[in-house]
Formats: sequence, C-alpha cells, structure tokens
Amino acid sequence: MDNDERIALLNRVKNGEIDVASASKMLEATSDLGYANIDWARKERTGYSEVVYCAGKTDEQILGIAQKMIDRGEENILLTRTKKSTYDVLSNQISDSIYHDDAHMIVLRPRRFFKSDKVIAVITAGTSDIAVAEEAAVTCETLGNHVDRIYDVGVAGIHRLFDKMPRIEKAHVIICVAGMEGALASVVGGLVRVPVIAVPTSVGYGSNFGGLSALLCMLNSCASGVGVVNIDNGFGAGYLASVINNG
Amino acid sequence: MDNDERIALLNRVKNGEIDVASASKMLEATSDLGYANIDWARKERTGYSEVVYCAGKTDEQILGIAQKMIDRGEENILLTRTKKSTYDVLSNQISDSIYHDDAHMIVLRPRRFFKSDKVIAVITAGTSDIAVAEEAAVTCETLGNHVDRIYDVGVAGIHRLFDKMPRIEKAHVIICVAGMEGALASVVGGLVRVPVIAVPTSVGYGSNFGGLSALLCMLNSCASGVGVVNIDNGFGAGYLASVINNG
Amino acid sequence: MDNDERIALLNRVKNGEIDVASASKMLEATSDLGYANIDWARKERTGYSEVVYCAGKTDEQILGIAQKMIDRGEENILLTRTKKSTYDVLSNQISDSIYHDDAHMIVLRPRRFFKSDKVIAVITAGTSDIAVAEEAAVTCETLGNHVDRIYDVGVAGIHRLFDKMPRIEKAHVIICVAGMEGALASVVGGLVRVPVIAVPTSVGYGSNFGGLSALLCMLNSCASGVGVVNIDNGFGAGYLASVINNG
Amino acid sequence: MDNDERIALLNRVKNGEIDVASASKMLEATSDLGYANIDWARKERTGYSEVVYCAGKTDEQILGIAQKMIDRGEENILLTRTKKSTYDVLSNQISDSIYHDDAHMIVLRPRRFFKSDKVIAVITAGTSDIAVAEEAAVTCETLGNHVDRIYDVGVAGIHRLFDKMPRIEKAHVIICVAGMEGALASVVGGLVRVPVIAVPTSVGYGSNFGGLSALLCMLNSCASGVGVVNIDNGFGAGYLASVINNG
Amino acid sequence: MDNDERIALLNRVKNGEIDVASASKMLEATSDLGYANIDWARKERTGYSEVVYCAGKTDEQILGIAQKMIDRGEENILLTRTKKSTYDVLSNQISDSIYHDDAHMIVLRPRRFFKSDKVIAVITAGTSDIAVAEEAAVTCETLGNHVDRIYDVGVAGIHRLFDKMPRIEKAHVIICVAGMEGALASVVGGLVRVPVIAVPTSVGYGSNFGGLSALLCMLNSCASGVGVVNIDNGFGAGYLASVINNG
Amino acid sequence: MDNDERIALLNRVKNGEIDVASASKMLEATSDLGYANIDWARKERTGYSEVVYCAGKTDEQILGIAQKMIDRGEENILLTRTKKSTYDVLSNQISDSIYHDDAHMIVLRPRRFFKSDKVIAVITAGTSDIAVAEEAAVTCETLGNHVDRIYDVGVAGIHRLFDKMPRIEKAHVIICVAGMEGALASVVGGLVRVPVIAVPTSVGYGSNFGGLSALLCMLNSCASGVGVVNIDNGFGAGYLASVINNG
Amino acid sequence: MDNDERIALLNRVKNGEIDVASASKMLEATSDLGYANIDWARKERTGYSEVVYCAGKTDEQILGIAQKMIDRGEENILLTRTKKSTYDVLSNQISDSIYHDDAHMIVLRPRRFFKSDKVIAVITAGTSDIAVAEEAAVTCETLGNHVDRIYDVGVAGIHRLFDKMPRIEKAHVIICVAGMEGALASVVGGLVRVPVIAVPTSVGYGSNFGGLSALLCMLNSCASGVGVVNIDNGFGAGYLASVINNG
Amino acid sequence: MDNDERIALLNRVKNGEIDVASASKMLEATSDLGYANIDWARKERTGYSEVVYCAGKTDEQILGIAQKMIDRGEENILLTRTKKSTYDVLSNQISDSIYHDDAHMIVLRPRRFFKSDKVIAVITAGTSDIAVAEEAAVTCETLGNHVDRIYDVGVAGIHRLFDKMPRIEKAHVIICVAGMEGALASVVGGLVRVPVIAVPTSVGYGSNFGGLSALLCMLNSCASGVGVVNIDNGFGAGYLASVINNG
Repeated sequence: MDNDERIALLNRVKNGEIDVASASKMLEATSDLGYANIDWARKERTGYSEVVYCAGKTDEQILGIAQKMIDRGEENILLTRTKKSTYDVLSNQISDSIYHDDAHMIVLRPRRFFKSDKVIAVITAGTSDIAVAEEAAVTCETLGNHVDRIYDVGVAGIHRLFDKMPRIEKAHVIICVAGMEGALASVVGGLVRVPVIAVPTSVGYGSNFGGLSALLCMLNSCASGVGVVNIDNGFGAGYLASVINNG
Repeated sequence: MDNDERIALLNRVKNGEIDVASASKMLEATSDLGYANIDWARKERTGYSEVVYCAGKTDEQILGIAQKMIDRGEENILLTRTKKSTYDVLSNQISDSIYHDDAHMIVLRPRRFFKSDKVIAVITAGTSDIAVAEEAAVTCETLGNHVDRIYDVGVAGIHRLFDKMPRIEKAHVIICVAGMEGALASVVGGLVRVPVIAVPTSVGYGSNFGGLSALLCMLNSCASGVGVVNIDNGFGAGYLASVINNG
Repeated sequence: MDNDERIALLNRVKNGEIDVASASKMLEATSDLGYANIDWARKERTGYSEVVYCAGKTDEQILGIAQKMIDRGEENILLTRTKKSTYDVLSNQISDSIYHDDAHMIVLRPRRFFKSDKVIAVITAGTSDIAVAEEAAVTCETLGNHVDRIYDVGVAGIHRLFDKMPRIEKAHVIICVAGMEGALASVVGGLVRVPVIAVPTSVGYGSNFGGLSALLCMLNSCASGVGVVNIDNGFGAGYLASVINNG
Repeated sequence: MDNDERIALLNRVKNGEIDVASASKMLEATSDLGYANIDWARKERTGYSEVVYCAGKTDEQILGIAQKMIDRGEENILLTRTKKSTYDVLSNQISDSIYHDDAHMIVLRPRRFFKSDKVIAVITAGTSDIAVAEEAAVTCETLGNHVDRIYDVGVAGIHRLFDKMPRIEKAHVIICVAGMEGALASVVGGLVRVPVIAVPTSVGYGSNFGGLSALLCMLNSCASGVGVVNIDNGFGAGYLASVINNG
Repeated sequence: MDNDERIALLNRVKNGEIDVASASKMLEATSDLGYANIDWARKERTGYSEVVYCAGKTDEQILGIAQKMIDRGEENILLTRTKKSTYDVLSNQISDSIYHDDAHMIVLRPRRFFKSDKVIAVITAGTSDIAVAEEAAVTCETLGNHVDRIYDVGVAGIHRLFDKMPRIEKAHVIICVAGMEGALASVVGGLVRVPVIAVPTSVGYGSNFGGLSALLCMLNSCASGVGVVNIDNGFGAGYLASVINNG
Repeated sequence: MDNDERIALLNRVKNGEIDVASASKMLEATSDLGYANIDWARKERTGYSEVVYCAGKTDEQILGIAQKMIDRGEENILLTRTKKSTYDVLSNQISDSIYHDDAHMIVLRPRRFFKSDKVIAVITAGTSDIAVAEEAAVTCETLGNHVDRIYDVGVAGIHRLFDKMPRIEKAHVIICVAGMEGALASVVGGLVRVPVIAVPTSVGYGSNFGGLSALLCMLNSCASGVGVVNIDNGFGAGYLASVINNG
Repeated sequence: MDNDERIALLNRVKNGEIDVASASKMLEATSDLGYANIDWARKERTGYSEVVYCAGKTDEQILGIAQKMIDRGEENILLTRTKKSTYDVLSNQISDSIYHDDAHMIVLRPRRFFKSDKVIAVITAGTSDIAVAEEAAVTCETLGNHVDRIYDVGVAGIHRLFDKMPRIEKAHVIICVAGMEGALASVVGGLVRVPVIAVPTSVGYGSNFGGLSALLCMLNSCASGVGVVNIDNGFGAGYLASVINNG
Repeated sequence: MDNDERIALLNRVKNGEIDVASASKMLEATSDLGYANIDWARKERTGYSEVVYCAGKTDEQILGIAQKMIDRGEENILLTRTKKSTYDVLSNQISDSIYHDDAHMIVLRPRRFFKSDKVIAVITAGTSDIAVAEEAAVTCETLGNHVDRIYDVGVAGIHRLFDKMPRIEKAHVIICVAGMEGALASVVGGLVRVPVIAVPTSVGYGSNFGGLSALLCMLNSCASGVGVVNIDNGFGAGYLASVINNG
C-alpha cells in the first residue's frame, strides 16, 4: 500500500464506508500465513507490490497467497515460474486472470496501464530465447510500460540487428536476451546511449554449462553501460527496466 | 546403548528377566547385515543412535535395518531422505511410525520428549525453503528439542524479520535456511548473540548452480557466529543445533 | 564527436578558422595508431568518448593514445586501471591532469560539469571495498554526475545502513559495492524504488574465490531491481549509473 | 556498549564524573570516520565488540579505527589478518598491545578473563595448519575462553588422535583445523558428543584448489554435528566456538 | 589372443582341426564392424581381452560385438554399464550368460578361475556405495581373483573399520569405495602396507557435486599409497586391482 | 542468395518469367516472421545458407521457418538437433526430406553435390561417439563434401588407429570425435599434416563432467594443428571442415 | 627431415661429401638428450620441425636442444614462451637469431620464405591482446605465410571492424584474438567465408577467470566456421592457420 | 619401528647395551613436539617411516622433527617440498644428508638399498615435467627400488614412446608423468600389462587450469589399469609404486 492508497482508505474509514477492524487489518505491514509472510509494505518502499515466485511452492500455497492478495484489493498480481496445471487450479477460483504461455506467468486481475510514454525494447539473439524474453516483456507490461519486441537479431547475421536499429534507438531502456555466447549484449552496448540490461539464457549445449558462457560473456562486456541479471531471469530484467523507465 | 541403558540391561540379566545369550547379543557394538553394519555404540559415543540415510538404499535394505533397530528396542528411529512409497512398505510392517511429508522423513516408534527447555528457532527466507526447514525442525524435535518455526522472512522485505526478532531472540540456537543468495544468514548473524547454523538450499535457478550461490554466501558471511552445513542438509543442521542446545 | 561539436567545427571551417585538411582529419571516425584504433564516433553513438583501459598496455601506448585524444581537443579523458608510475610518465607530458590514487585512475584535462541535479549514491559494505567504490565514484563525477559516498554500512551491523537511509533515498541511482558474501545489494534492493547497480568485489579470502561468492550472491538477489557488473568493475558501474542518471 | 556498561556510564554522568557531551558521544550507536563506520551497538546486540578485519585496509585506516576504539575505552580489541609491519606502526602509538605472530593478529589493551570454565579444544591435522589454528585459539582466548591446543593428529596416523581422546573428550566445543582432504573433521565428529567446528585450510597443492578439497570434504561429512566455516577462517571458528561455549 | 592361445591355434592348423581361412581370420588383430573395431590384440598386450562399455551403445551394437567375441571363442566376456533390458535381449541369443544386478554388468560365457591365491578386499563406507563396489568386485572375480567384500564401515563409526582390520590386513590389494567426503580412503591408507585403490562415488547431495567432494578428498589424501580412479568407476578399480594382484 | 543466384533471378525478371513483386521479395536480405528473422544474405556473406538450430523451438516455429525457406527455393536445408517427432510433423507437409536418425538432423530438399574432390575424414574414439560423428558427417555431405567415416579407433588399442592411417592420410581435413579423456585428437594431431578439428563429446561419466574432460584435453593438446569446437558440436565441426575443405 | 632432404643427404653420401657415420646420425628419428628427446621425424610426418616450448625448461636445457637442432642443420627454429634473459644466454652462442619482444619468441637461423601467396589475417579486439596476436603472427611468418595485422577492432566500436572488412575479406584464414567476452570471433564468423581460428586471451579481470569467459564465448559461438585454441595460445593458432593456409 | 627392529632393541636391553629408560622412550608410538606429533608406529603399520612434508613448516620446525628422527636412529629420512635455503640450514646441523635439486627433496642419512630386483619406470611426456618425475624417482629409490628414467616421450611424437617400449615393458610398475592434456597415460595404459600410476602436472597454461586438464584426462582414461594421484604429486606416485613393487 502506498501513500495514496492509504489516504483513500482512511477517507473510507472517515466516511464510514469500511469498518475499523477491516481497515486496521488492511493497514498491517504483513500477513503471516505460516508458510508465507506477505509483505504489504513493499509497494510503499519499492513502488511495486510483492511478486509471487511459484517454483517450489505447492498449488495450495500459491492459491492461499493469491486469495489473500485479492482480498486485499491488489490488481496486476504477478505470479512467475508457474505451471499451466497451476493456472488450471487457480483460474477455477479466480476467473479474472490470464496465463502467459511462453512466459510461464499468471497475472491475476490484469489491468493495462502506462506509467510513462517511454518504451522498453526487448531483443533476443535467437528464437529459442523467446521464452525468457516474454517473461521480461510481460513483466514490463504488467508494471506499466510500453514494450517493443524485436526477436532473432543475433550476431551471426548482424545486419538483422542494424535493420532494427531505428526501432532500438527509440527505446529508453533495452533488455537484451541471449544464450550461447551472448555476444549480442556487447554489440548493442557499443551502439546505444541508453542502459542495456543483459539476460543470459541457458539456450545452447555443451560448454554453455547451463548459461554460464552467456553470463560470463555479458559480465565481461567490452562495451560499457551493461548491467546483468541472473541466467534466464526475464522477470528480474523486466523489473529493473521498469524501475529505470519510470525513474 | 549408553551407560544407563547398559546398567538397566545388566540388572535385567541379574534378575533373570532376560537370558544371557540375548543380552550378549544386545551388548555387541555392531550388527553386520552384510549390506549394512549398524553401529550400536554410536549412542554412547555421540549421545544419539544411528540415523538411517535412505537415499540409494533399496526398500528391502531399509526395512532390514529398521527391523533390526526395533528388535534392539530403539525408539525415535529417524530415517531421512525417504520416499512416500518406502513409507507405504515400511508402515505395513511397523505400524508404530509416522511420515513427515514436507521433510521426507520417517520416524519409527516416535516418542515426544524434551532434553531441555531451550528453544531452537528454525527460520526460512522463503516459502520454497520450507521442505529443508522441516527436515531440520523434525530432526530437532525427534532429538528432544523445542522448536519455533518462523518462515518466509527473507531480506527482500526485511521488516518481516524485524517483526519476528522478539521470538528469534528467545532462541538458544538459530537455524537459518535460505536459497538464492542466502543473505538472511548474514543479517541474522549480525543481530543475535547465539550460534547461527546456516543451511543453503538449492532453491533458485540459473547461476545459483544447485545451491552454490547460497553456500558461498553463507561461508563468506561478514557477520560472525555462523556455521554452515551442506546444501539442503536440514538434517545436519538439526542435529548440530541439538548438540549445541543440549550442551 | 557529437552533433553539436560537428556543427561547431563546420562553422569554424566556414569562417576560415581551421583549414580543411585539419578539419577533415577531425571528422574521421577512427584514428588507427597500429596498436590502437581510437573510436571517435563513440561519443555520437553512446554519448561518451572512448575510455582508455590501461591494464596490459605499455606506457608508450597509453601516452600515444592520450596525446592523440588531447590533439583532438577531448576533455575529461578517463584512463582506468593505471599505475602510479604510468601517471608519473604521463604527467610529464600532459600537466593538465590528475591521478586518483584510490581509484587507480587518471583524468586528463579534467573539467567539472553536471548533466543533471540528480544524485548517484555509492555505498560500500566495508572499508576494504573503497578502492572499487572510488573507481565508480570518480567515473560518475567525470561523466557529469553528483555523487554521495556512503561507506562501511554492511549488514553485520545493519543499523548503520538504516541510519543512512535518508541520504540513500535521495539518490536517483544506487551503486552498491560489496565483497565477501555481498548481501548488502539484496538488502538495499528491498528498501528502495530506484535502480541498484551491484558491484561484487574480490575482498575476502578462501571460498570467496576472487569475488565469485559476492558475484553469485548479487546475481541471485531475492530483491528485484538489481543489475550486476563484473567483479571489481567500479568503472562499469559508474558508467551504467551515469547512463541511467542522465536518461 | 552493553546494558551494564551503559548503567555505569549513566551513574558517572549522575555523579558528575563525566560531562554530558562526552557521555552523549559515547552513547552514539556508530562513529562514522568516512572510511569506516564503527558499530558501537554490536556488543549489546551480539555480546562482542566489533573486530577489525585488516586485509585491504591501509595502516592509516587501521590506526584511525584502533585509536577511536581505545578512546571509547574498549579492551581486548581484536585486529585480524594484520601484517607485522602494521603492528610496528600501531605499537608506536599504542604500547598496550601484543602481536600474535602465528595468528597474524593484534590485540590492543589485552586483558585475560574467563566467561566460563568450559574448554574449547583446537586440534589440527598437521603442523602446516597451525597458523589457522592459532587464529582460532587466540580469538577464543581473547573472547574469554579456556583453550586446549592439540596439534598434528591427522588421520594418516590415527592412533595419535586416539591418544589425545581423553583431552578432546573434556572439551565443550571442538575446533578441527585440517587441509588436504580434511578427513579429520569426519573422524572426530563420529567420536564425540559436542559440536565440532570444522575449518578447512588451504594447506596442500594441486587439486586441493586453495582449500576447496578440505571444504567440500567437511561439508559432506558422513558424521553429524559438524558446522563449517570459510577456508582458513580461524577467527570465524573461534568466534562461533566462543558463542557456543558461553551459551 | 595371447601367445599360448596362438600356439594352440597353430597346432590345430597343423593337425588339420581347423581350416586355414578360419584360423587366418582368428589371427587378425582387429575386427571392424563399422560401428565398432574390436581389438583382438589387447589380450596379448595387456593380459586381458577387451571389455565392452555399453553406455551409449544400442542393443543391436552390443549384440553384434558380443556375438563376434563369442564366435572368436572368448570366455568371461565382460559387459559394463548395461541395462537389465539389454540383458533380456542378449540372453535370448546367448543363454550362457549371467546378469549382475547390483553391478549392472553382464558376463557372457562365465567361467570361474583364479590367477593367484591373493585376495582383493573391496570395502565401502556405506550401504549406498554397494552398487559401485559390486562393479569392482565382479570385475575382480571375472578377471580371476579372490574377493573379500566388507561393506558399510565408514568413519562415522570408525570402530566398525577396526573390527574388520584382521580381514582387511589379509588382502594384497584394497579397493576403497566411498561417497560423501570419502574420508575412508585416507584412514585405511594410514593403516595398511598394501596399495589402496580409492573409488569416489556420487553418493550424497548438495556440495558433493556429483562425486567431486569424494574425488578431491581422495586425491588429496594425507596418507600415502592411495591411487584414485574416476567417480563411480568400480570397473576401473577392479581392473587395476587385478593387474596389481597378479603382478 | 549469392551473386550467381541473383543474376539468374534478374534474368528471370528481365525475361518476364517472374513478376517484379515476387522477385523483390526474394531480394530482401531478411524475412522477419516475428519469432524468427531469416537471414537470406548469409549465403552471399559466408557461402552457406542459414542452418536451423531446432532445440528450444516449437514444431510450429520450425515448420514456419522451413516453409519460408522452401518458398524461397532453397535446397539442402539443414535442420539440426531435431526430434523424430518433429520430423513426423514436418514430413507431412514437406515430403521431399529425409531424417538422419543417428545425427538427429533433417535435410529438406536434399540434393547430393560435391564442391571438390577432397575428402574429410571423420574418426571416432569409440562406438558411443558415433551420434556426434554422424552430425558432423551429414553436415559435411550436405555442404558438398566427400566423407570417409572411420569409427572406434581410440587410443586404448592404438594399433587400430595405425591400421587406418593410410585412409586418414588421404584426407584433406580430419574431424576427430572423442569423449572420456579425448586423447585421440593429440595422437592424430602428431601424425598428420592437415588440420584436425577436435570435437569433445559428453560420452563418459563421473569426472568427465558432461564433456569437460575431453574439452580441456583437446584445448591443451601437446600436438599442434588442432582446433576445437563445443562439446557434442558435430555440426560446428562439419561446417568448419567444409569451409576449410573448399578453401 | 622430409623426403627431399633425405634424398639430398643420400646424394651427399653417394658423392662422398659427408661420411657415413655422420649421415647415419642424421637419419635417426630421434636424439635423446636425457632431459629431451628431439623428434626429427616430425617434419616428415607433419610438415614442420619440432617447435621448442620453453616454459619450465632451464636455460641449459634450451641451449642444449637448440644447439642440437642447429648441428642438424635446421633453420627457422622456433622457441616459444621464452624470457628475454634466455635470449641473452642463447644469442651469445648462436648469433644468427632474433628475439620477438612482444611475442616472447626466439627464432634461430631465421630465413624468410613463403609457401603460398595466400594471406592470414591476425585481428585483435584490443591493444592488450597484441602480445598473443604477435605470437600467432610470428609463428605464421616463420612457417612461411604472409600476415596482415589488424589490431584493436573490438565490438564496442564495431564500425572499426567494418572499416577493415575489405582487408579481412582478402584473407584465406583469419585468426581472431580477443579477451574479456571474446565476442569478436562470433561477429567475424558471421561475416566471412573462410575459417576463423579464435584465440581467447586472459586479458580482463574478475569473472573473466583467467580467460575462461572468452574461451566459453568462443566455443559457444552462434556463428559457424569457428575453431578454438587454448587461452593465450597464439602459437597454436598460428600453426593451425599455417596448416590450413598451405593445404 | 617394525617387529625386527623391536626384537633387536629388546636384545640390546637384555644385553645391557642400552638403558631401560632410553629403550622405553624408543618404544613410544609417538613423540609430541607440540607443533608436530611424530608417528613412530607408522613403519610397523605401513612398512615405511613417516615422510616429512615441509611446505608450510618453518625451518625451525623441520629441523626439530629431523633431529628427533635422527636421534631415534632413522635412516633414509625423506623430506619433501623443501627449499634449498632450508637445506642450507639443515646441512649445517646434519651433514650426512643430500639435496635433490630437481625434486626439491632432502634425504637425511641416505643409505642405498633394494627391496627387490623389479624395476619402476618413470616416464614423462615432456622436459618440463621432469621436476615432478624426479620427485617420484627419488622417492622410489629412497624406498628401495630400481628406477628407469625415460623422459620426453609425449604423444606429439609417438614413435619416441614406441622406441622406448622395450625398456618400458621390463618395468613392474610404470609412473607416467604428464601435463597439458596428459594423454600419455591413456596410450601407455593401452600398451602394457602392469599398473600405471598417472601423475598430472601443472605444466601448461590457459585452460590447463593448474593441472586440471591433465587430471581430468587421466581420471577419464579409456585404457584400464590406470590409477591417478594428485597434481604434481611425484612423491605420492613414487610411494604407491613402491608399495606395489614390493608387494
């Protein structure tokens, strides 16, 4: 809950639109469900509500957390790393929701909005990197940004990248998603004047060692202005891009 | 068998309550089953009977060892890293047993008891760390300790941790379970005056490399008073906490 | 050379203030010295002139590059990873220069200016991280930013961080420099609404493996909004922060 | 400053033995020297004053911190990872100090005291591990513990260990320091009923990879009751042992 | 084919018991099946016929090689890393064969024989190491050695090892199989005067990293007289032990 | 499209055999399908059309790309890392195609041709390396080369290699495929006067760490004239060999 | 000695120009100096005489080998990884020699010659990569090739590379030398139709881990036609390029 | 002290040649010097007296241990990993000693003897591996074995190895010392019928990663009968070879 929301709530108390006990409950900083301890103060601190990382959580736990957030009135609730089967369970209870297949993400009570006019470009080196790129793109969109998707412009055919430079140069932040050797981040980094967020992917085999090759490549970029997130961490890239874009 | 148990046995021999051959059998330091060599002397040496690590053992081997320990009169026999299907086989033969689902542990002939009044706090950074935390907590309880479970208080919303400090400060030992970057151990270590046992988990993806990130983080803690156990080793943490708690 | 500079140059040609041959030379996109191929177009493309990475270069090569850039009229020429002995050689030829001892950086023809009023906070976990932090801070300042240095606020005594939160919250971008387990980045990331650039350092010993522990910690941050640069890469962090700050 | 110290100070204020400004200064939770931010609250939180890690700090910084702590009235100020040359500088200013050569530690204003009668045993596998063991032992002693040093009892001649078991069994906590394959920790862990703190050392060569072999060995101990600290981290082991010993 | 076999064959030619074309075929050094190139000269060079490593081979390939070796008159043909399903296919064609379940090995035309009276001891740290130990033991037996199996004598209960020392000391070569930290090899190495072949296993979890912990432990043994083979390589240990035992 | 193809197309335009719109379409340098951005200029730049890496692509994406390339008139379209099930889908639409089972490759509109008379030898250390070798061999053949397959000539029976030297010496380029320790590349490299392309495979177990052992072995070859490609990268080796062979 | 040299020698014997004992000596395949076993047959087998790797050899050993090769009449004797101090010792004895400072190589009895008209391009990403590039270039030249050096064209300013494409496209083989993230190899690989030999260098810091980042990047190149040699192995790249160039 | 020595000592007691106190002292199993705990029982257990590993020990400690062993009457006392400067100190006190320069070993009271007629062959791949080979060879000789040194027969010129096979085949045990890719061990392993002890060395650069490449190569040998010791561990190889040779 941020300051605006808090003032709105207190006005409802003042106007008798909500009883004091309920309002008090909504002003708590956390809700401890035993297995999860939801951080209602995060929005005020960081500008965004808590996002639910679903890997390693049971469907029951996910549903419990989701229900609690909906009860609280949250919108655009983002669930990452979800399985389709989890969505089948959730959507039975919470029909106001969508599943992003490529991105393996659920958005509960999705509401499209824009915090600014500035665009985030999400570019990939190859087709196989699209799943991670979509995680980034959906995150950006859910957090209120315009996104321009530019896929499969890796350095093996570098003119494909140059063809897209007019669109890329319009972006305020660039998310660059690449597996294998991850060279795209360095090349893009040398061509632009905006921040580049590099996302290494685990696409590849052998000595890519689950994304290590692209990760090291991006960390050692000879071009400046590149920040790196974890392997396959499309969400993290999207979140960081959003923070920058709305700065 | 520890000294008290031995004296009790010898009194039973003296009183003719048990025949000499059986008693002699029970005084052996080991039972060699061919595939397993049970260490009856461990309790006297270390204060605790042997715990059965079940990964890589067949159901037949586990059952054989379990039966031998029950024949010997052991209670609170702890079986770790077990599958539900193994419990289905075992519980047919040994009904006086329970299965801890989250912890993947079986306790044969469970008997609740307390060696001291001091409490071990088991805290996790996230919901996904609970399986490992439960392995630690059940171990602590089976070995005779009070446990306080405090889950999902990771540093992304650090006020959740501060909210729980009154409970954490009451503990005599703290087990801190965290995956991803494992930063919780350092933060807790800087706030308390009791030993912190840090358990890295394999929760996460990409460059967490199966728990390596949390492991290295915890080993390099800038806060002092932190000892580390193997990745996902809830049992080891619980055992060490118990040794300290009952010291 | 960016567009403004080019227009100024062409006006000088038009006015006869500079001869055509010299002007043509200055309009070349590169100068190939054989051992180095200076990229004059970088400023137009990325907003900043080329920065000279001096590790592995001889003093003669560094001096050659430096002289060429000065001949071209560049100011605030940044040389990173330099030795004091190199500065002793350079400053004989180029007196309009300073050496930043902690940061191991030289700035030729230093001119203080500000691109915006927004502040970049540079914070460290410990005193031993200051060399890397200074590399970041000097980079930020040379590229036209206000910097607020906040040092030695690591998580072992976390109230030190909270004491400084009022200053940290005033920053538009935060650079977080930490060695050992690098937990500071996650904690800060969970408290703020601006981008956090995490710089792992090689400070520590044993299983920090030259900065690997802090690097993995930061990449696996449970808090969002964190981008990571290479180990000890203060320059890279400063550059990225500047790009964001002036976005 | 802990509660007792605070009460004493306030009594001195009340009795006019100290002026209010000085007392107020001493009640601050931190002293920010710019390059270091000393955490005076640590003693109250964790039971021990801040320990100064000297690697990567200049002699000037170390002296500044040391002087500040002395001004504050601290005793048994522990400086780790120091060079002999640093001590030569310090001892000129602060004569009430000693240098522990093997341990590479300085203690300023050393005062021998004991928090309890219980003993911490520090054992090593070999002679080459003694430097790390001494770091542990001096830490224990400075923090108020009795220490029993038992060196060079590695498993290549395991009867040497058994010869010392009567002494080892008298300890309340055991610190086990070993390089190469680090097997001593597992063997000791299987023989005792008290906590074992395992310290891997970088002693060895080739595939010991700077202590990695001993570290992994100790983390994977088949014996329970073993907690591990960082490679060569004698200080960390000593601190943790002290926390347990005085629990 | 070794020298004795060759003389026998030539006598059969001389006596007209075999036609010249068949005999000539049998004197070839290799048989190239396209997908496999069987090395008939290996027995003469190294004392043992080729052993068939089956991982990564199709059932058709394995059957083709096996049939060729049987046609050539080989006995005790050893097939390693086989699946039960492969045996089901093979045994339909080649009934004179057995499957060793634990060891995942097939022996075609098994014939028990002994090259010497000396014994190879195969010892394991735990029950979970038995599969690898059986691969070693069956290899030793198939190559003509007496084997003494001593299982589950790991260092967590070291008296179990001492109980078995009388049997271990009778061995001419010792194969020591252990996972987790692999400390058993060092302890045994310090107690005996015969070669110890150490086999690290992948038993364990977390930072055992697929057997790396035991491998590094064994390579860094502080006891001398220890040679190491690949992780889980029971066959390699059995073969080397046999070469030593029959030396 | 290379120069010859372009001239042919323009002649067809001139002769009215193709309408201008279609021809214009075919002269585009890329076709952007959204999820893939096909690089038609690659053939002119590098001599070969784009090859489709299928891992991580959906059947729909693969079919879309394939259809586009066929529409463009491409022949010998190479699809790597494909599943048999993908071929079942594709061959329904595109009957002029074959599936190479061992190599996991599809060739659409296969047309046998030869760019030169020179031969590429593909040799393997073992039978289990054949899948990777076939990926190399089929690549070479599809790109217009003669291939000589020589399999299972590893160094454990080195005379098998010497037997094949007459064939190997006839090759203009040698592809050497080996897993485990990968020693074959060094031995071959020391015997020949033509380039050796070494392909490490993931064949093996334990400390081969997914092909790392063979990779490092080949990179550190004491013989000269050896270039290395990624683990299991038969395609990459075949492509490089073809570039050299047709040089 | 190759066939031509052997025929020349035998003619000298026939003509009485050399005595039989000396000629016989020169026809030996090896000279065993005890500490070194010179391989005279290498030239015939591989087309090039043995090259002397000097790291880890004493000056006495190097001089001994060098003298032996000169006695045999060898020219263009290449000594790699030499120190200047070694050259000072050698050149006293063998004046017909030169030292390549950047490349750390000595050539004894240097004789410029060309095996073909085709050119090898040696390109570097940065100035700091020049030492390795020179090792490659001098190797190429000593083995009879034309070399075109193109330095400092890394991807941070990619137009520098495009400026040089006309020269690069004239090469028959390209050696691409790059540290940090090594992206240059992929970009070049996507632009040319000749083999690219990629040489990762250890230039960089932090997570380049001594060249690992560039090595993995190059092995995982998304562009085809790239073969990789060991980190900093300029000699190996030069040798392989020469074998290809003269094929 | 072994059984023969003990009987001799007791006879001296019986005959009054030595007083009871001295004899009792000599019958102790250990001498604890505080910093070292000498294991006199090792000879009886393992057949060899303790060997002193000197890395990480001070000259004073080494001298103390050496003097103690000499007082006890030991001969052929082996000190490994010693510096020349240590020998300079020691030889002042103990003139009956020699320093092996290549092997970095001291032997105190050296006495040549032979336990058997069987020969151990020590072979190296290159000249740079000789230091490690000499550590092995001197160990073998000091422990009573005949040694045949065969150096510089690596696989780049494999005929050099074949030339030496007659000598190699006479050995009862083979120690194979190789750096870089370490392929020699596999090749030799495929050619002989005796045990091969493989010693990886750190000779090489780049991706040899301090000997890791040779270590992994040797552990993954496709030839059987190969046991591996630690990187650069010539002593360990020599000791193991001696145990086998005298078995």
